Amino acid sequence: MKKERISELREYFLAQLLNNVLPFWIKNAIDYECGGYITYLDRKGSILCTDKSMWIQGRTAWLFARLYNELEPREEWFKLSQHGIEFIKKYGFDIDGRVFFTVTRDGQPLRERRYLFSETFAIIALAEYSRASGSKEDLELARKILEMVLFLYKNPYFLPQKIYPQTRKLSSLSLPMILINTVQILRNADHQDERYNKIIDNLINDIFTYFAKSDRNILLETVGANGEFLDTPQGRCIDPGHEIEACWFIMEEGRYRNDYKLIEKMLPFLDSALELGWDDQYGGLFYFVDIDGKQAEPLEWDMKLWWPHNEAIYATALAHFLTGEDRYLDWFEKILEWSLRHFPDKEYGEWFGYLHRDGTVALDHKGNNWKGPFHLPRQLLYSYLLFSEMHKEIENSKKCN
Amino acid sequence: MKKERISELREYFLAQLLNNVLPFWIKNAIDYECGGYITYLDRKGSILCTDKSMWIQGRTAWLFARLYNELEPREEWFKLSQHGIEFIKKYGFDIDGRVFFTVTRDGQPLRERRYLFSETFAIIALAEYSRASGSKEDLELARKILEMVLFLYKNPYFLPQKIYPQTRKLSSLSLPMILINTVQILRNADHQDERYNKIIDNLINDIFTYFAKSDRNILLETVGANGEFLDTPQGRCIDPGHEIEACWFIMEEGRYRNDYKLIEKMLPFLDSALELGWDDQYGGLFYFVDIDGKQAEPLEWDMKLWWPHNEAIYATALAHFLTGEDRYLDWFEKILEWSLRHFPDKEYGEWFGYLHRDGTVALDHKGNNWKGPFHLPRQLLYSYLLFSEMHKEIENSKKCN
Repeated sequence: MKKERISELREYFLAQLLNNVLPFWIKNAIDYECGGYITYLDRKGSILCTDKSMWIQGRTAWLFARLYNELEPREEWFKLSQHGIEFIKKYGFDIDGRVFFTVTRDGQPLRERRYLFSETFAIIALAEYSRASGSKEDLELARKILEMVLFLYKNPYFLPQKIYPQTRKLSSLSLPMILINTVQILRNADHQDERYNKIIDNLINDIFTYFAKSDRNILLETVGANGEFLDTPQGRCIDPGHEIEACWFIMEEGRYRNDYKLIEKMLPFLDSALELGWDDQYGGLFYFVDIDGKQAEPLEWDMKLWWPHNEAIYATALAHFLTGEDRYLDWFEKILEWSLRHFPDKEYGEWFGYLHRDGTVALDHKGNNWKGPFHLPRQLLYSYLLFSEMHKEIENSKKCN
Repeated sequence: MKKERISELREYFLAQLLNNVLPFWIKNAIDYECGGYITYLDRKGSILCTDKSMWIQGRTAWLFARLYNELEPREEWFKLSQHGIEFIKKYGFDIDGRVFFTVTRDGQPLRERRYLFSETFAIIALAEYSRASGSKEDLELARKILEMVLFLYKNPYFLPQKIYPQTRKLSSLSLPMILINTVQILRNADHQDERYNKIIDNLINDIFTYFAKSDRNILLETVGANGEFLDTPQGRCIDPGHEIEACWFIMEEGRYRNDYKLIEKMLPFLDSALELGWDDQYGGLFYFVDIDGKQAEPLEWDMKLWWPHNEAIYATALAHFLTGEDRYLDWFEKILEWSLRHFPDKEYGEWFGYLHRDGTVALDHKGNNWKGPFHLPRQLLYSYLLFSEMHKEIENSKKCN
């Protein structure tokens, strides 16, 4: 990438983060009355629903702590993270240690789901916050939740199942994928590299053993318990955004360990996720795709969502940075250009989350139980840090010349 | 409506039913190997998934029996209904008497849901089939399932709940709505009018007590257990297709009982459902609408689905027939015109099920766990019978003149 473009984008990502995205959420999403964050907001930031998503409590508390730890130790960000951590610790947990999916504004439990994502997002919040606060107690709580999640990952039938496992046992990519990132964040707070590396090794191994369809370089989303391909709409359906996210989580692991082979191993999967996901007709990434070109099952299959585009922007930038390959630069510029043409809300800030296939806005709210201050600001923060590193490399090479 | 238009439409509905829609399903959906019906089919009728939806087993067995009972006693239709009834009785039931949601092709249970719709569709299948076969045993089974469903309707916390009822008790329009139609069909087979009329009275009363927001003539989809309006995305979200369906079920009850007041009571609700549901920009009926004009929650909110359009075609035709009001004729022609311009698959027959807001095809498969030989052929059959009645009235009035 050209030096000027690196500088320009580095500044752009930081300015978007600090002057557009964070102000939207800090102004509208902090519940000073009852604690935690309210992110179910309309386009302008007005509340559509006061129920609180525990996914978002965890992700938001993580984000503010991450900003404090990695960008700048602003007292405001520390306090905003603490604000969510207190709500999570007070209202987030069921009696068995599981984390609710939604609670009322004042913290009464509304819903718990089969899936363990509320738990993984509580772990990243507590771990990242403990780095900032030095709280041993919060770190210990993060470790305890991980222990439970890993037990349930290995013993899934302790949880209620959607499909009778006596008839059909299913396994889903999303849990090992999200666990890789979760353990990376906990490792960064807990510094027991050997222990956490081993866990991550096992998770990556599971992904390659069960989900990687190597003849076609596809990470399947749902397989049989022994990795069998299921020739059903569910078995054929992939979520390119998830695949791309899995790729960059694992490429970051390769980067952390200086294991270039691991990075290289992911590239064909990243290539195929981008190819399968990209919409040649209207541009942008489909939400779901049937790998055999049949009709994908979800009604929203051809919608363009904000988060896969954020994952793809960062993944392609990272792949270009790590490999120097031009094709990732091309993808990066193409996805960034499409995203910036369609997602930003030029009037009220932040991004729209849900576009029709043709890029027009389908739902204009700014947040809900899934969309909050996470994918976009994470991408902006991570991209800024990555482009800063590229920038530094160029400056260093200049000095050497 | 003009005489010529009545004749033309009457012929059109019958021809579509007999020469387009039924042949598609009879050719592609009957599983002669394992029993029952496979309706998860692509545009051309090829199988996308062999798992069987119990909703569809019930609805399809009902349809063929209904055709036999109301249109013509064709041996083929009797056999096709029997084919589904046998599968339902053999593989449909859990040990507690509940009906599964999906089973494998050979009948192994895959999934049971919180909702009681598999049960209601089993009831209509068994009841309608018993009219054709004279089977007392099948009628008795239908009665038994209804008894269980009514118990669970009144005692909902025997079923697993999505939301903790300790925090928020919810009640949903769909069950009393579908039960009205279910009991109507069972009454028609069982001839115990007094008993079934009382059940229907209670269901209609529940709808007016808990779900009817009379100041705005809206039937809410989800309310608190005592009918409280919930100012959340869920509480504000209505499904115009459901409302319209509820209206014609209840108007049919008024017609059956010669209770014109009951018919009249539904008209403002039908009017408002049509107004709220209609898309002024592209035409067609939205799938979901927020009654306060805020962003509706489901990602597919602005899609145009085949079934609400079928419900609306029949409901407006019925309302015009019962009231003589021109506005229902206008709605009928407008909805029919839009539907016929966008839904029919001119190449492979039947209708597409899922269109984008602008009427282009979003998913091109012909069936799945929800779409099968039901809404469209039911609309065609019911419309044909209604237009035949209109036709007869005109012929009779001619003779009198």
